[in-house]
Amino acid sequence: MSTSVKIFDTTLRDGTQGEGISLSVEDKIKIALKLDELGVHYIEGGWPGSNSKDIEFFDRVRDMQFQNAKITAFGSTRRKDSKPEDDINLNRLVESGVKVATIFGKSWDFHVHTAIQTTLEENLAMIYDSVHYLKSKGLEVIYDAEHFFDGYKNNSEYAMQTIKKAQEAGADWIVLCDTNGGSLPQEITSIVTAVKSSINTPVGIHAHNDCELAVANSLAAVQAGARQVQGTINGYGERCGNANLSSIIPNLQLKLDYEVISEEQLKSLTQVSRYVSEIANMHMPVNQPYVGNAAFAHKGGIHVSAILKAASTYEHITPELVGNKQRVLVSELAGQSNVLVKAQELNLDFNKEHQKTKEIIEKIKDLEHQGYQFEGADASLELLLREAFEGLEEIFTLESFKMLVEKSANHSVVSEAIVKVKVHGETIYTAAEGNGPVNALDNALRKALVQYYPDIQQVHLSDYKVRVLDEKDATAAKVRVLMESTDFNSTWSTLGVSSNIIEASWYALTDSLRYALLGKTKVEPANKDQQERLGLVNH
Amino acid sequence: MSTSVKIFDTTLRDGTQGEGISLSVEDKIKIALKLDELGVHYIEGGWPGSNSKDIEFFDRVRDMQFQNAKITAFGSTRRKDSKPEDDINLNRLVESGVKVATIFGKSWDFHVHTAIQTTLEENLAMIYDSVHYLKSKGLEVIYDAEHFFDGYKNNSEYAMQTIKKAQEAGADWIVLCDTNGGSLPQEITSIVTAVKSSINTPVGIHAHNDCELAVANSLAAVQAGARQVQGTINGYGERCGNANLSSIIPNLQLKLDYEVISEEQLKSLTQVSRYVSEIANMHMPVNQPYVGNAAFAHKGGIHVSAILKAASTYEHITPELVGNKQRVLVSELAGQSNVLVKAQELNLDFNKEHQKTKEIIEKIKDLEHQGYQFEGADASLELLLREAFEGLEEIFTLESFKMLVEKSANHSVVSEAIVKVKVHGETIYTAAEGNGPVNALDNALRKALVQYYPDIQQVHLSDYKVRVLDEKDATAAKVRVLMESTDFNSTWSTLGVSSNIIEASWYALTDSLRYALLGKTKVEPANKDQQERLGLVNH
Repeated sequence: MSTSVKIFDTTLRDGTQGEGISLSVEDKIKIALKLDELGVHYIEGGWPGSNSKDIEFFDRVRDMQFQNAKITAFGSTRRKDSKPEDDINLNRLVESGVKVATIFGKSWDFHVHTAIQTTLEENLAMIYDSVHYLKSKGLEVIYDAEHFFDGYKNNSEYAMQTIKKAQEAGADWIVLCDTNGGSLPQEITSIVTAVKSSINTPVGIHAHNDCELAVANSLAAVQAGARQVQGTINGYGERCGNANLSSIIPNLQLKLDYEVISEEQLKSLTQVSRYVSEIANMHMPVNQPYVGNAAFAHKGGIHVSAILKAASTYEHITPELVGNKQRVLVSELAGQSNVLVKAQELNLDFNKEHQKTKEIIEKIKDLEHQGYQFEGADASLELLLREAFEGLEEIFTLESFKMLVEKSANHSVVSEAIVKVKVHGETIYTAAEGNGPVNALDNALRKALVQYYPDIQQVHLSDYKVRVLDEKDATAAKVRVLMESTDFNSTWSTLGVSSNIIEASWYALTDSLRYALLGKTKVEPANKDQQERLGLVNH
Repeated sequence: MSTSVKIFDTTLRDGTQGEGISLSVEDKIKIALKLDELGVHYIEGGWPGSNSKDIEFFDRVRDMQFQNAKITAFGSTRRKDSKPEDDINLNRLVESGVKVATIFGKSWDFHVHTAIQTTLEENLAMIYDSVHYLKSKGLEVIYDAEHFFDGYKNNSEYAMQTIKKAQEAGADWIVLCDTNGGSLPQEITSIVTAVKSSINTPVGIHAHNDCELAVANSLAAVQAGARQVQGTINGYGERCGNANLSSIIPNLQLKLDYEVISEEQLKSLTQVSRYVSEIANMHMPVNQPYVGNAAFAHKGGIHVSAILKAASTYEHITPELVGNKQRVLVSELAGQSNVLVKAQELNLDFNKEHQKTKEIIEKIKDLEHQGYQFEGADASLELLLREAFEGLEEIFTLESFKMLVEKSANHSVVSEAIVKVKVHGETIYTAAEGNGPVNALDNALRKALVQYYPDIQQVHLSDYKVRVLDEKDATAAKVRVLMESTDFNSTWSTLGVSSNIIEASWYALTDSLRYALLGKTKVEPANKDQQERLGLVNH
């Protein structure tokens, strides 16, 4: 029997302290439901004592059914020199309707003096009173010992007194926080071990990533006896972020054999992490461990030829265990074996002796020679291969586009695009403005397609990169445009190469939309007659 | 006296295996020079046996002076069943002209059987012969024991034999690699300890980040006796990346008291990390530990009020130690010290109390808030500073430009620019075609200027990069264009920011030409009469 570890997710509270993250109540509910599917044990939804948005969140989830997770609300110990029953912050926790309250208090004598400016004794009383009050209201109480490690290093005796007070008052969990993220794994190990030998209450760990050690520190704490890990999906959080649950969960379960979530739930990890990044509107780094798009991507030729013999030669786990998958980045460095792997992935009959295979390899070679580089552009490669082996429905073809950018002194620039495309045999002529030329083209092309393919509204471009291929004469040289596009389920990359940045962008853009529409069925525009009257559709 | 640890940077070799990273020879040289300034001890420049770009790199650095770093070239042990003196790969290392060779060999019996498909004995001979051959050529030899930790876990006896062979053959360093990134800190600790008790050769560590533990694993190895750490700036590298030197260096030096680089060099860490991300055209996550823009940014109200009382309440180190700074307000000036350094370099009287200084700092703050980042654009910063302190002659001003791109099916694209500028009071109206829109603009603007400034013919744009600043909505987001220009004597960089890529390019282009013309004297066009007849000049 393996030991079980509880996961406490604070994406909705501490996670939102990260720069650039802001979640609506609706966003928070969506994420909470996903976290519940993933199987986390606690979901910290917000701080009802600090803002009305969080109060609304708790109102809305009060009657919702969660399968796995308990919802918890965050707050602080009572204010100094007051009574818990008069404390608005504590009462908001009670009123929020949660069954679990999480409150933080001070462990570091320096903070008691400097930040809250009271006596060490009063701080102990604040901890005791607050935990005791919430327990008297029938709540499960998680006590977060803020700055515990810094406090312990500065005055271990006092730091221990603070958590003993929480224990005396009946706290269900005592969570040791490395709030500044400055501690090292061996410090965590020795301090958690000392705490475990002094208190009986179950212990948790709350780490921050300021030294890029939050995952290691969380594992060290568990190995020293902690049984709850607090963190956020994708490591969102203030400064350098909180401990990243997307890495901690698989490390605990697959590497250290703790019982955390079910095997099935673990398989949803990649999808949940990407979903949260979409809702939070944060770009997910391709190299994010376990769940990133490149986490199991192979580029070097030696690596690729070895993984064809056995994937475990260059993969530390089977990617499917966390719902991710192997990708082979095709590049000149690696040669043909990478194309072969991609074809296998797509179940194409890629026999090297076939004429089709020879032709497509020649074509890819030729494109690479022109400056295409498919390693970062899976979707463009997939389109090429599917076209060669299966044939692809021609969804739209370009007849022409015009793009105009105009600027006068002291006036902001104007961009317009006029696009004439044939969609399923009908010529559509549209025009649109945009923030820039590519945005204008994107807008015009979508306008032409959305009536037939309404799903295209969910697709958006999430990254855009331009690389000059021959730097010797930069503005007259070829450029490679790499675009990344996203909908709620997945992310794909496409590319285009041309000496003209607009043309290169057009190629990447059309590939992105062609990929998005693979397997999608055309609908008949609801307002076709009207369009014909307006002259938008020409037969 | 603290113990010294050597830093081996492989940004230019293993780092380029990361998805989306591709460096030109020029980029590699720029990064190598920066790494040397930072004070790393070894710079691995590439794999001369694998591609001609890397051969060119070693040719170009051969006669360059590096203050701190030794340049090293990477390769593998000889092929099976052959002689080292006949091995092209080993001979390329010798021919590259480096004084230090880094070669990798197999430690894991599984790989010997599966990947290179030879006998365990032949693999030992391959290691011995290769190290011995390179030593006989007078080189310092770093032996990278690939997959050492996986090998040791599978067959510790054989793994130990492989590194003993390297030791016997005279290797100067034996570097233990966690190639798949799947090991945990306690495994690293126990295996490095076992190795240290069996061999005398100095030991290094090479970790990957697949479990988000590469930094922790590198520290664990050093604490167990390793004295060389291999990694990359910003953790670039295959899959989830290599160990991140931007975090490891400050952790070793500030937290564990090892001697790594000088205090002054450490203060350049943030700037070097950002510079490398600019050159590599990789977005730096704001929450990157130590060097990220949000690494010391405070958002939570409680945190902010506490740091106003004492910064150490919520900061684990003083940010200036790594050249970063605290940010509380969004528009805080990130690179003030860089501005100061630049002003000193230009001999400007940059007294913080002067009104001019305050004004220019405000202006730069404002521009940074808009997305300007002067770290990679010296020339634009110099123009700003000179303008504020000395005034600059207005060489030309824009009246308007129009830019047209047109494409029809099966025809190549056409780009035209029409530019109306005032040069020394005369309005000049020119038009030009180009390979792309920026090239067309460049051509039209040059046409207007070259008659007054013939020197401008020698200037050309040598690199052009585009970065999307807010990935949430890529084609409608702001973009930053970074241009590098060159004449026969020097190279300079300029930038422009706009939501329109053409406008951003225009700003960078005009800065480039303004910089090129600094101190140049206007000449009277030889053929002015003729131009007037042609209507090119309007008074």
